[in-house]
Amino acid sequence: MNVYDKLKELNITLPPATAPVAAFLPSARAGNFIFVSGHIAKKDGKPWIGKVGAEISIEQGKEAARAVAIDLLGTLQDAVGDLNQLKRIVKVLVMVNGTLTFTEPHLIANGASELFIQLFGENGKHARTAICVAQTPFGSCVEVELIAEVA
Amino acid sequence: MNVYDKLKELNITLPPATAPVAAFLPSARAGNFIFVSGHIAKKDGKPWIGKVGAEISIEQGKEAARAVAIDLLGTLQDAVGDLNQLKRIVKVLVMVNGTLTFTEPHLIANGASELFIQLFGENGKHARTAICVAQTPFGSCVEVELIAEVA
Amino acid sequence: MNVYDKLKELNITLPPATAPVAAFLPSARAGNFIFVSGHIAKKDGKPWIGKVGAEISIEQGKEAARAVAIDLLGTLQDAVGDLNQLKRIVKVLVMVNGTLTFTEPHLIANGASELFIQLFGENGKHARTAICVAQTPFGSCVEVELIAEVA
Repeated sequence: MNVYDKLKELNITLPPATAPVAAFLPSARAGNFIFVSGHIAKKDGKPWIGKVGAEISIEQGKEAARAVAIDLLGTLQDAVGDLNQLKRIVKVLVMVNGTLTFTEPHLIANGASELFIQLFGENGKHARTAICVAQTPFGSCVEVELIAEVA
Repeated sequence: MNVYDKLKELNITLPPATAPVAAFLPSARAGNFIFVSGHIAKKDGKPWIGKVGAEISIEQGKEAARAVAIDLLGTLQDAVGDLNQLKRIVKVLVMVNGTLTFTEPHLIANGASELFIQLFGENGKHARTAICVAQTPFGSCVEVELIAEVA
Repeated sequence: MNVYDKLKELNITLPPATAPVAAFLPSARAGNFIFVSGHIAKKDGKPWIGKVGAEISIEQGKEAARAVAIDLLGTLQDAVGDLNQLKRIVKVLVMVNGTLTFTEPHLIANGASELFIQLFGENGKHARTAICVAQTPFGSCVEVELIAEVA
């Protein structure tokens, strides 16, 4: 099944291409790899602020990670033109803005990982690292970067 | 010298292949690279819990990092079939679950780095980053991911 | 314009090759990629210590990130021989030693990113992730690693 059919089935609309910022790119291609910059979770277009384990629950954090994954796909689409051309999602780094006692960053990370698998099947399966960091840009509750491979 | 002879000499038994989890893979190959997921330190099969600089000493943290390195090699062996086929260890990221005042994550990281060099010699020498993170999955005292290259 | 002319124009002197350490390399090449190890900010040759948001201001942190970028270029030059041979800066990871409430690691990161663009133009534009970590080696206020591509 086509990735775009899957997106429709899941009622997901990809965001428009991220506006370029001054100092860095949303993604950079080198060889067959696309390195996608860390994207922060947003809600209604603004940073989704808070620490998981305090203001943000596990369920909310997981939902936020899924929201970042959608934004990452928007950036990937902009980079490759057609998401069906993606060979695979290779590596995902999930950085949770958690409290110093929140020991379940992997549950938050599943929000992104599960969406990639739903959309790309075998090609969505990836290596992954999940950690809690001290803070993220704008205090967003989760930040995700990834490496994808193109054919 | 063969890597397996070195392992025997150091009295190290590689763990069996990691059971696949639902949301992500122990490692993912793309081109000649193998991206190995973040692995947490375990002791007696359970997460090796604690913060370096508090409950966990530098010596223990270094030992924990060495234990993760062994598990990473188990995953790598599962990925390539024969560790002798590995071209090199390229990049290691060591994420120490340290207190906010523990400023020696590099000493912990040496537990992993030194083992790779003992086992692979020149091919075990790698680029590396060591940091302290706010937390890890299950509160493990150290988490390590790596990138290896195959011929 | 030649990178070395740009460096001269900005009055930047690259550091001598980093002395090799026991356990890891300043950088490792694999395929057309050079993975550069995490480098910490230094001032007068010693770790530039402190937490951004506490002892270290945003302006100082940004300056520190720029200083790390210069050291990274010294390492890259040592790896490739001639910085003009660099195809591009691909991916930069900026790890700010920030307080738990410092939510602007991206501003610190700009100190490195902007220098790469000043020096390499389009080829200096890169994917990037900025986070705050709990601590860094020696308590340095910022640590940066990168991936570069050679032709």
